[in-house]
Amino acid sequence: MEENIKITVPFYDVDPMQVVWHGNYVKYFEQARCAFLDRINLTYNDMEKTGYLFPIVEMKVKYIRPCVFGQLINVCARLVPCDNFLIFKYEITDDVAKTVLCKAETRQMAVRKKDKESLFMLPDVLLERLREIK
Amino acid sequence: MEENIKITVPFYDVDPMQVVWHGNYVKYFEQARCAFLDRINLTYNDMEKTGYLFPIVEMKVKYIRPCVFGQLINVCARLVPCDNFLIFKYEITDDVAKTVLCKAETRQMAVRKKDKESLFMLPDVLLERLREIK
Amino acid sequence: MEENIKITVPFYDVDPMQVVWHGNYVKYFEQARCAFLDRINLTYNDMEKTGYLFPIVEMKVKYIRPCVFGQLINVCARLVPCDNFLIFKYEITDDVAKTVLCKAETRQMAVRKKDKESLFMLPDVLLERLREIK
Amino acid sequence: MEENIKITVPFYDVDPMQVVWHGNYVKYFEQARCAFLDRINLTYNDMEKTGYLFPIVEMKVKYIRPCVFGQLINVCARLVPCDNFLIFKYEITDDVAKTVLCKAETRQMAVRKKDKESLFMLPDVLLERLREIK
Repeated sequence: MEENIKITVPFYDVDPMQVVWHGNYVKYFEQARCAFLDRINLTYNDMEKTGYLFPIVEMKVKYIRPCVFGQLINVCARLVPCDNFLIFKYEITDDVAKTVLCKAETRQMAVRKKDKESLFMLPDVLLERLREIK
Repeated sequence: MEENIKITVPFYDVDPMQVVWHGNYVKYFEQARCAFLDRINLTYNDMEKTGYLFPIVEMKVKYIRPCVFGQLINVCARLVPCDNFLIFKYEITDDVAKTVLCKAETRQMAVRKKDKESLFMLPDVLLERLREIK
Repeated sequence: MEENIKITVPFYDVDPMQVVWHGNYVKYFEQARCAFLDRINLTYNDMEKTGYLFPIVEMKVKYIRPCVFGQLINVCARLVPCDNFLIFKYEITDDVAKTVLCKAETRQMAVRKKDKESLFMLPDVLLERLREIK
Repeated sequence: MEENIKITVPFYDVDPMQVVWHGNYVKYFEQARCAFLDRINLTYNDMEKTGYLFPIVEMKVKYIRPCVFGQLINVCARLVPCDNFLIFKYEITDDVAKTVLCKAETRQMAVRKKDKESLFMLPDVLLERLREIK
């Protein structure tokens, strides 16, 4: 129930302190989460077809060690079992030294597309899909 | 036929060489262009209602002097009269020293929304609006 | 002990769901935090002169209502009294309706520049400055 | 004298019109250019050690067809022989259909680090390296 992607830290993500600007990690989390959802055929496009959107409603990030330009990092996105939200935990590690660089968590809520109503349970169509892949 | 906006260069736009990363200038151009279009009641939302989209089809940028963190810059967007494209010229200057930092040009083409057909003339509804403001 | 800035949501921050992409809020927080630090003469440049850096070590965001293209938002950054970290709380509100759109918190740790040592207390030079402005 | 990279268009690069925001292509060009320079051992870090910086002084982009979320694209960066500037030409194609989506060019000038003097010739150390790889 996890997916790992590799990223070589690009120049344009690095700030004047020579480290990845803290807001740019959010892109790395999304890339790993999308890779996971893609693998289980639940891309954003697939999700939209279910009649629901899944906006991020909460995000927590702990920055442990800086990432630098050219560094090869591994970004792991792991789905946390939960019937109410889509919860992912992330861990970024240096791909060579295996040191942990960053940990994070995001929470996505189901919102019915037609009336924008927020749901406090994931819709059945999604729960079934998630059960299958377990 | 021009609009000027002021921007204090934000930290997150600056790269490891301590200057604004060259790709981030595109945001400054867009902010000035949107301010211009907003003033003549032609925001992206207004445009969409005309039944046409106006994607950028060409962009040229000359970087003359670097922009640095905290610098107050003036971004000028000026509409170039043309019946075929929406053409804007941009000039970024240091707001205090008045030195020119960057010059650019963008070209937008009209695309009919319903069939995605590219037009080699701006639609009448837009030309009339532009004539009024001259 | 707070600073408020206004932002008109730019087109380039908006995602295919027609709302501000969740990672882009981090830029709004930074702009408000920098405006606060600027006002008390503690810009990133001033900080660096103290011999310390203040990297973000933790960030929490709650997304309450979406921000949309062209919306005028108010971003408030408020310093939370603390001797160990620089802690800011943020609140984004619609500038007209005054509805709360987003709440967040960031935590910055002092790191001595010469040996990259992390400190679990803010350096005296910073604490004195913060005491003066109270 | 060229390098090709593959990118799966990420969600965060896509704008409300459901296509990659025009400013985000600049990142794709840089990734391909860095991959090229990396292969010939001329990363930004290597360059800095030569005592010169190579800022982008000009950029031209032609947007031919839009890129969409999830699309697999190929970005080709090709060095154009020139003794005065580092000139790269780029071509973005759909990796499956092979249709051309975007063409671009960037020009980098040598700037001596110690006195920030612009040079109208590439430094010998760089010219020799480029000759070797031909």
